[in-house]
Amino acid sequence: MSLYDLIMRRRSIRNFKDQEIPEHIIEELLDVANNAPSGGNIQPISLILVQEAKRRKELSEIVGGQPWVKNAPLSMVFCIDFYRIKKWSSMFDTDFKGENALSHFLIAYADLMCAAQNVVILAENYELGSVYVGTIQSNVDRARQYFMIPQYVLPMMVLSIGYPKSVPRNIPKFKRNVIAHKERYEVLSDDDIKKAFENKYGSFDDNVEKYLKKAFIEVVEADKQQDQKSWTELVKEEMKKLEIRNNAQFLFKLRYPSEAMVKMNENLVRAFRNAGFDFYGL
Amino acid sequence: MSLYDLIMRRRSIRNFKDQEIPEHIIEELLDVANNAPSGGNIQPISLILVQEAKRRKELSEIVGGQPWVKNAPLSMVFCIDFYRIKKWSSMFDTDFKGENALSHFLIAYADLMCAAQNVVILAENYELGSVYVGTIQSNVDRARQYFMIPQYVLPMMVLSIGYPKSVPRNIPKFKRNVIAHKERYEVLSDDDIKKAFENKYGSFDDNVEKYLKKAFIEVVEADKQQDQKSWTELVKEEMKKLEIRNNAQFLFKLRYPSEAMVKMNENLVRAFRNAGFDFYGL
Repeated sequence: MSLYDLIMRRRSIRNFKDQEIPEHIIEELLDVANNAPSGGNIQPISLILVQEAKRRKELSEIVGGQPWVKNAPLSMVFCIDFYRIKKWSSMFDTDFKGENALSHFLIAYADLMCAAQNVVILAENYELGSVYVGTIQSNVDRARQYFMIPQYVLPMMVLSIGYPKSVPRNIPKFKRNVIAHKERYEVLSDDDIKKAFENKYGSFDDNVEKYLKKAFIEVVEADKQQDQKSWTELVKEEMKKLEIRNNAQFLFKLRYPSEAMVKMNENLVRAFRNAGFDFYGL
Repeated sequence: MSLYDLIMRRRSIRNFKDQEIPEHIIEELLDVANNAPSGGNIQPISLILVQEAKRRKELSEIVGGQPWVKNAPLSMVFCIDFYRIKKWSSMFDTDFKGENALSHFLIAYADLMCAAQNVVILAENYELGSVYVGTIQSNVDRARQYFMIPQYVLPMMVLSIGYPKSVPRNIPKFKRNVIAHKERYEVLSDDDIKKAFENKYGSFDDNVEKYLKKAFIEVVEADKQQDQKSWTELVKEEMKKLEIRNNAQFLFKLRYPSEAMVKMNENLVRAFRNAGFDFYGL
């Protein structure tokens, strides 16, 4: 298979076999994370390998009860790590203040994602599947406490990895020219924007189960992996209550409710500050 | 070559041949960017392809005069794009407020880097080289103006791509176990931290040209690509003036001076706000 085809076939996998990943493959995954591009080659990242059953379960709870994090044989907790650099620079009569410099933070986060995406692609090459879980950002304090993460280190992304039990059908994406612009930003007309999303999502579907498979595969996957109350049913009730009538409302009234998303700022900023990160003197 | 070897051999390339990239390869690069993982599959990104000589030159100036941006046949300006989503959601009686939600911003930036790193790896496969240029974040206002980027869109990263004229020797990286932790964060002793950096950087070298090749390849590469005043000479003078005596001081007194990095916050926050992004009600 060509590398193009490999990258294009990648889907987020949320249903994993109960099968360990060989140690030599894990070592290669760590190598490509460690050798990822890094701004100024500072390498301000750490990653925590979570494989013990007890810790997988706890991590799954920390990120909001996502069963694939518990079921994946391996999760990597990717952290921005300024601890090591601050210690080192203080030993040599200088200082590093990345925790107060938004620019250092943003570049470190970019480095972190380069490392993570290297892992995603190499994993795919070994017939492994993976899924990013960003909701650790909603629970930074608890994650730091549980994994004994020191000051100046921020867990920012979880990548859960394992052998796929099932691979979801294609995920709808924009046509290439929606995101690509030539020489300058080309503002799409309202009509073109409407079409771009219509092409991507298709029409809003009265068959809710079918719709969720396309629009919110997470709830469908989660239901397959636990016995308790059905997330699909909860979403259906919520859709009715909120009178969701189209794709946009589904996304921004139900899945990512706008007001709630904005309200999370306070929690996130407080957690960052608890870890010693403060860019605004707030 | 195995995919592992391909990813491991990747180095940032800053010296490009004057050779166009075939259109079908550019299309594949766009495809893998477009098909990158995206939180909630929202795809809140755009990228601007810069190929015209005039625009390459201007972009190079916007990012601080880096000659490789001018010399690369193609640069991609990766943007967080909430414009399209805001327009769409307003057409369908809902709203998206990502510009005020730090969480949406952080996930969008992660999406953007996944897309960019997909491009980096596929480019490597076609014997292309690439280099990330993050300094567009220092000049967001001017970049937005020049590329006619509307409100709710933030240029965050440039990736310059082309056929390598030369490939730098290996870049020093930490040993794998410095960044990887098992089950919980393992705080390194001061001594281990010292050793980790010693192993990575080697000793501070009196032979400044030799040192810069290892520690600040950018200035060496830049000097090769322009006639004007020598950056290497400037750095040497600065090293003397600041009495730089070790690797840490070189990094955080000269290359990323701590106070200056913190002072950049104000500019960055203002530029974000000018683009309509404001997470803190500042």
